[in-house]
Amino acid sequence: MSKPISRFPVPEIAALPEDIRTRILTVQEKSGFVPNVFLVLARRPDEFRAFFAYHDALMGKPGNLTKAEREMIVVATSNANQCQYCVIAHGAILRIRAKNPQIADQVAVNYRKADITPRQRAMLDFAMKVALEAHTVGDTDIAALSDHGFSEEDVWDIAAIAAFFAMSNRLANVSNMRPNDEFYLLGRVEQQA
Amino acid sequence: MSKPISRFPVPEIAALPEDIRTRILTVQEKSGFVPNVFLVLARRPDEFRAFFAYHDALMGKPGNLTKAEREMIVVATSNANQCQYCVIAHGAILRIRAKNPQIADQVAVNYRKADITPRQRAMLDFAMKVALEAHTVGDTDIAALSDHGFSEEDVWDIAAIAAFFAMSNRLANVSNMRPNDEFYLLGRVEQQA
Amino acid sequence: MSKPISRFPVPEIAALPEDIRTRILTVQEKSGFVPNVFLVLARRPDEFRAFFAYHDALMGKPGNLTKAEREMIVVATSNANQCQYCVIAHGAILRIRAKNPQIADQVAVNYRKADITPRQRAMLDFAMKVALEAHTVGDTDIAALSDHGFSEEDVWDIAAIAAFFAMSNRLANVSNMRPNDEFYLLGRVEQQA
Amino acid sequence: MSKPISRFPVPEIAALPEDIRTRILTVQEKSGFVPNVFLVLARRPDEFRAFFAYHDALMGKPGNLTKAEREMIVVATSNANQCQYCVIAHGAILRIRAKNPQIADQVAVNYRKADITPRQRAMLDFAMKVALEAHTVGDTDIAALSDHGFSEEDVWDIAAIAAFFAMSNRLANVSNMRPNDEFYLLGRVEQQA
Amino acid sequence: MSKPISRFPVPEIAALPEDIRTRILTVQEKSGFVPNVFLVLARRPDEFRAFFAYHDALMGKPGNLTKAEREMIVVATSNANQCQYCVIAHGAILRIRAKNPQIADQVAVNYRKADITPRQRAMLDFAMKVALEAHTVGDTDIAALSDHGFSEEDVWDIAAIAAFFAMSNRLANVSNMRPNDEFYLLGRVEQQA
Amino acid sequence: MSKPISRFPVPEIAALPEDIRTRILTVQEKSGFVPNVFLVLARRPDEFRAFFAYHDALMGKPGNLTKAEREMIVVATSNANQCQYCVIAHGAILRIRAKNPQIADQVAVNYRKADITPRQRAMLDFAMKVALEAHTVGDTDIAALSDHGFSEEDVWDIAAIAAFFAMSNRLANVSNMRPNDEFYLLGRVEQQA
Repeated sequence: MSKPISRFPVPEIAALPEDIRTRILTVQEKSGFVPNVFLVLARRPDEFRAFFAYHDALMGKPGNLTKAEREMIVVATSNANQCQYCVIAHGAILRIRAKNPQIADQVAVNYRKADITPRQRAMLDFAMKVALEAHTVGDTDIAALSDHGFSEEDVWDIAAIAAFFAMSNRLANVSNMRPNDEFYLLGRVEQQA
Repeated sequence: MSKPISRFPVPEIAALPEDIRTRILTVQEKSGFVPNVFLVLARRPDEFRAFFAYHDALMGKPGNLTKAEREMIVVATSNANQCQYCVIAHGAILRIRAKNPQIADQVAVNYRKADITPRQRAMLDFAMKVALEAHTVGDTDIAALSDHGFSEEDVWDIAAIAAFFAMSNRLANVSNMRPNDEFYLLGRVEQQA
Repeated sequence: MSKPISRFPVPEIAALPEDIRTRILTVQEKSGFVPNVFLVLARRPDEFRAFFAYHDALMGKPGNLTKAEREMIVVATSNANQCQYCVIAHGAILRIRAKNPQIADQVAVNYRKADITPRQRAMLDFAMKVALEAHTVGDTDIAALSDHGFSEEDVWDIAAIAAFFAMSNRLANVSNMRPNDEFYLLGRVEQQA
Repeated sequence: MSKPISRFPVPEIAALPEDIRTRILTVQEKSGFVPNVFLVLARRPDEFRAFFAYHDALMGKPGNLTKAEREMIVVATSNANQCQYCVIAHGAILRIRAKNPQIADQVAVNYRKADITPRQRAMLDFAMKVALEAHTVGDTDIAALSDHGFSEEDVWDIAAIAAFFAMSNRLANVSNMRPNDEFYLLGRVEQQA
Repeated sequence: MSKPISRFPVPEIAALPEDIRTRILTVQEKSGFVPNVFLVLARRPDEFRAFFAYHDALMGKPGNLTKAEREMIVVATSNANQCQYCVIAHGAILRIRAKNPQIADQVAVNYRKADITPRQRAMLDFAMKVALEAHTVGDTDIAALSDHGFSEEDVWDIAAIAAFFAMSNRLANVSNMRPNDEFYLLGRVEQQA
Repeated sequence: MSKPISRFPVPEIAALPEDIRTRILTVQEKSGFVPNVFLVLARRPDEFRAFFAYHDALMGKPGNLTKAEREMIVVATSNANQCQYCVIAHGAILRIRAKNPQIADQVAVNYRKADITPRQRAMLDFAMKVALEAHTVGDTDIAALSDHGFSEEDVWDIAAIAAFFAMSNRLANVSNMRPNDEFYLLGRVEQQA
């Protein structure tokens, strides 16, 4: 608890702008704790607002990708980027969304061996390509997704989520963003499910 | 002009939400044309708003980094990511901001050989590390920046700009975002005349 | 339970040579389950015997490296090699050995951000170099370990463990070795209770 | 103008062997300036002669590849090798040869998104493979070129140009060869076309 | 002869445990010299025993792969790992087993250009994938081997040999294991005479 | 002897231009055979002339680097580029020049473990950087060479040889250039006799 959660100064919640404080307190109420990403980014209010607006637009909105599938993209690409915060925090969310205590660890280490559908495998193949070599993405990649029933909107969603976490992973790695203790066990034990 | 600017559908400006339309028309008035990134992203209004709010918070706000220096970060990391739109569009902005018709091409291809100061070289060394292997960033990297007079806030700015364009480059590469014809010559001729 | 644990045939325990059956039953008695690596490798009795003799010589014998430190090497290098079985199984063992429910996830994703000592950081820097580019290991690497108090025997141990799991990770990845369900939660809950 | 064009000493034109001086003065007369590569290499007369004899044999001789296509190969592979001199100098030549002010920037950053024909795309795919992993080139690569109508002689030309600039890029990067100011704008403004 | 064969202490043969001394003397009798790997590893008797038991199980046992083919796997993957000892020592063995004085140098540098059958080419493509990116091995790789007539047992053998030498290469590189002088010429001259 | 030495047509010696035929016959007289590189390149007389003029300027001229040291650069970088022809042919020349039957195999596989001086090690470190990432070469690399007594001319020589073989390796790999049988044993036996 006394370990620093960032290499940068972290503001007091009470000192934050009203809208940011409200957002943080709402999360705290819902989750029982404040995920450190909120505290680490809060020192830059405009960036905080843009970051979470973007995050919410990609992760929470309606669409063909389930919420669990969106989190799979985050977990697979974040481990490829060696982002401790994102793998551990979004691993917890993935377990909860998928109601599957094993899926996050499987997807993080090697999604090719995970208990996922062929459609999800194609989704993650594409997401990893966006994360690691987006400059080579071309028509055949889009066609491969289409073969699995993904629409044009789905392609955008997969790419945008992988791209957003390309940013997020870099911010977390540079800032030494520390995952909250709570994330490690969330969604693992049956009592949580 | 008839070449597609995105692999995804591009909305009509007239059909866009009021705030987005206004933003686009303001840019058009100021620049004389609408940079394609506005049109390509407009199909997702919430993502559009978050993207540009984030962009403005990083690229336009006060701070120790000059506007030209911020654009240097964009140009160097975007070529490393082979993002045609970002190198060509932000190359133009860099030439204008730096009042230097050569700097963008130099920084894009190999910033180590560019006409920049040792301080700017250190800035770009760090930005490239964030772009390409942020997981290895550590205290010695921060100390190297500090040796060149960069403050904690500057470190955040450099990292956040490199991270934001890690996202932006991926969106542009997946969407086949096409640079406007206008960018190619901007900032090249006036300085020569 | 019905999911295959290997792409290769898995022998019945009853049909195995006496010494191998005994080894497996002993593990089962001690752990409460048979880790799949025993079953997957058992089809090749001579390789099984050599593999576990080697494993025991490196992981269980006396020396300056604690058992937890040895497991850290396994977990860090196995995630670099994207070996699902080894990260999940040895992650469990690391949590138990270190009596720390968080350490395995931290070390797996990015050991540079883990709650480890500078000495352990140096150990893992070296282990990762052995795993990923052993051809460049030279005197300065050995000297860096020596600066942290590692003896010649310790250097051998670190290198040999990283080397052994270079093999093990490849066997697990090719065989689609599946981690047992039990590993996911081991060492996570007791410490919390 | 006062910036050094090489990390090595640069000879006076007047002090050069007759044939080299003549070659340089001829280029100067034709182009209006002396491209720095002539001055940087002139200190080693035998290497100078061999370099330009090779260059002329590959870039200026008859064949199915247009002169613009040969320059495309130079520009694409030179940016992959981060060679500032070659991208900027040959980018200018490409714009002039192709009578297209945009093509060089497009091809340099990401040829996969450039305004080129499928045949030219196949040519550049092969050239990049020669530049970056020639050891994997095999019969299927040759067949892919043949499918686009490239003859055996064309294959040799593409490979030889990519190979020659693998050398040239390394010489320019080690020597800090500086592109002449004139190259930046050549072929960009209509007056040039 | 006076050059060190390891960066670690090397025990006297006379001081070794009985079984290890016997093994070494047997090899010496058969080969006319003691390959340094025996001496370098002997300082850790348990590891020595496991290493050679594993080695013998993979390299000497019956199966569809010829002994020469097994050595090809060693030579190709060991050069990819830049392991001097293994390329030079197993290159000698490969020349002898294949009764071909050229095959080892060909396979080491670029097996794609070696005088091998298409079946052996497929075997080495797979072995190199196991050596360099085993995490991507999947069903299509196994199917490609099956197309060349390799059985399930053969697949295991190829993978296990590549995996074992992933370990062995790392041990040799860290320990500065020196190839014996004898290996350089073995299998080169007799076939020529 | 009946195996093809190139994927491209190889001209009859009798049909070659006078100067090229003379060069080839001179080499044959001196060496006892015609190295295949002469035959493979002869189909393009102008390129042939430029290639060997360049080669001779770099490999045969006076300077501080011994002829053996120049060949070391060729052998080390050619194995990094997986060029079978260059490693085997220049390995033979290196053995002869250095009067050392082991040096070529050592340098090819891992020059860091070869029986070379610290000065030669620094030379090869630099040559490999030129071969693999010349874009990062900077003042500190030059200074490191200077510390070992290398002059400015020596730096140029090392870089130019590494650059020339970057080209040569690519030509050989694309053309499937086959090493002559004679090279394999050259310089190996005499020293032993």
